[in-house]
Amino acid sequence: MRPAVRVSIVGCGLIGASIALALREAGFSGEIAGFDKSAADRAAAERLGAFTSVRLVQTSEDDARSIAEADIVVLATPVLAVLDWMERLAPCTRAGGLVTDVGSTKRVISEQAAALFASDANADFLPGHPMAGKESGGAAMAEAGLFRGATWLFTPLHPVVPGTRAAEWIDWIERLGARPRFMDPAAHDDVCAWVSHLPQMLSTALAALLEDTFAGDPAGSDAVQAIGGRALRETTRLGASPYSMWRDVALTNTEPLAATLLALEQRLQHMRENLRTPELREEFATANRFRAAKPER
Amino acid sequence: MRPAVRVSIVGCGLIGASIALALREAGFSGEIAGFDKSAADRAAAERLGAFTSVRLVQTSEDDARSIAEADIVVLATPVLAVLDWMERLAPCTRAGGLVTDVGSTKRVISEQAAALFASDANADFLPGHPMAGKESGGAAMAEAGLFRGATWLFTPLHPVVPGTRAAEWIDWIERLGARPRFMDPAAHDDVCAWVSHLPQMLSTALAALLEDTFAGDPAGSDAVQAIGGRALRETTRLGASPYSMWRDVALTNTEPLAATLLALEQRLQHMRENLRTPELREEFATANRFRAAKPER
Repeated sequence: MRPAVRVSIVGCGLIGASIALALREAGFSGEIAGFDKSAADRAAAERLGAFTSVRLVQTSEDDARSIAEADIVVLATPVLAVLDWMERLAPCTRAGGLVTDVGSTKRVISEQAAALFASDANADFLPGHPMAGKESGGAAMAEAGLFRGATWLFTPLHPVVPGTRAAEWIDWIERLGARPRFMDPAAHDDVCAWVSHLPQMLSTALAALLEDTFAGDPAGSDAVQAIGGRALRETTRLGASPYSMWRDVALTNTEPLAATLLALEQRLQHMRENLRTPELREEFATANRFRAAKPER
Repeated sequence: MRPAVRVSIVGCGLIGASIALALREAGFSGEIAGFDKSAADRAAAERLGAFTSVRLVQTSEDDARSIAEADIVVLATPVLAVLDWMERLAPCTRAGGLVTDVGSTKRVISEQAAALFASDANADFLPGHPMAGKESGGAAMAEAGLFRGATWLFTPLHPVVPGTRAAEWIDWIERLGARPRFMDPAAHDDVCAWVSHLPQMLSTALAALLEDTFAGDPAGSDAVQAIGGRALRETTRLGASPYSMWRDVALTNTEPLAATLLALEQRLQHMRENLRTPELREEFATANRFRAAKPER
């Protein structure tokens, strides 16, 4: 199989635009066609200079055919839009092509991929999820180095065979500086509920609670933030994250996320009931152990 | 009143040692005597080169007299140790001196200061609290720039009069690059429960929960942290904080802290019950507003 010479990226926000920049930095010299419905993101993506073209995308069949002409199609949108694009693209793709995505949950996407991309006449589908991002999205925030050192999770529908487009895409992911890791889709959604979705909801809950508590205060939430310093800044940073993306996570990973939230509520209650007992020491000791573990490389 | 030429710093951990370094950088050329019971912190503090001397401190009356000879005494220990040192030092201080502290809660310290340092024959007492720190303490982590841009809260027992040692100390705080802000002690403890103590307990609870969930996992908490990336790192960073310091906060600010914890538990429950409803949009919108507020300078 010839190396891919044409990549379509659907969604030129932070992740899609950063993939384009990172591919260029890693030496990809083929065509990178960007597609986005937002005029602002299209303009910002154009300015990056990494895309060969950046086009308005509608939901028409023409658009789908144009996107599907690429050797590799990257769906870089929130999860529900990934699901929509999978439906539109499946009939237009052809054998030897690859469709991959960057959605935050993988169970629903993997199930739909198994249903839509099973035929040998269609492109292959490789569900993916880079563990990188920023609380503020948009192509204007894109960086070639966004994925360097980050884990890039994949939940393949079948073993990845050397020499295929899927194997080629994983090679590119490594050249972007990311570390591929393979998981079962349900295990992915469970672990991501703990390490990504729970921290997000927690940070949103804390920021929303502080806003409601201090917005009417004479000092205001700006004074409160000045007092809080780095600890407050870091624990509420994800509070800036957009609903549009996280709604889809909440809708497609509801039960695992609800379970982690309930566990945290109970843990906070335990801590609250033990502010004056030696149990508090145990909580700090356990938390200290978590932080002493060295993230594997 | 002549400018202060001798400062005693009781506790040569992160904050005490950083104050010594910052005073030197800001041009203080007098004596800075450090006192600590930990041999490791004494050795690390000596190496910084900012202290004139670093001595083992016991709880003897001799020690208290030696500390109290300074023009300005800075109590840079956890809150309960601050309270102990106030009792020991009060009888040894003299008019014209100043004792100040950096304790994380201010109501109990301010009440005790009013009782112990009321006499005109004694030193003045200025309760203080720099909103700066790191999750890992110790003199080895000290930095001259730790307080730059940070808010330094004071809860004075009486208005600060120009020309006094208290006014002189506040001048030094500004020269260290910090921004002094004055508050009522109860208001201090309430606002710090929200912006400092709650984020700490939350981060400890999340890290402890993840440790208990994944420590027995084949992948382990190190793999989990590699997957989680920056969002997880920032929301659990304070999980490394030492129990020794936070026990005193929990003991001296129990009710305000318990109230914030309960409020957060309820907020998380509300979010959990609305993962699939438009209420979730409201939570994100409110959190977005908090983060859009610009911390005042």
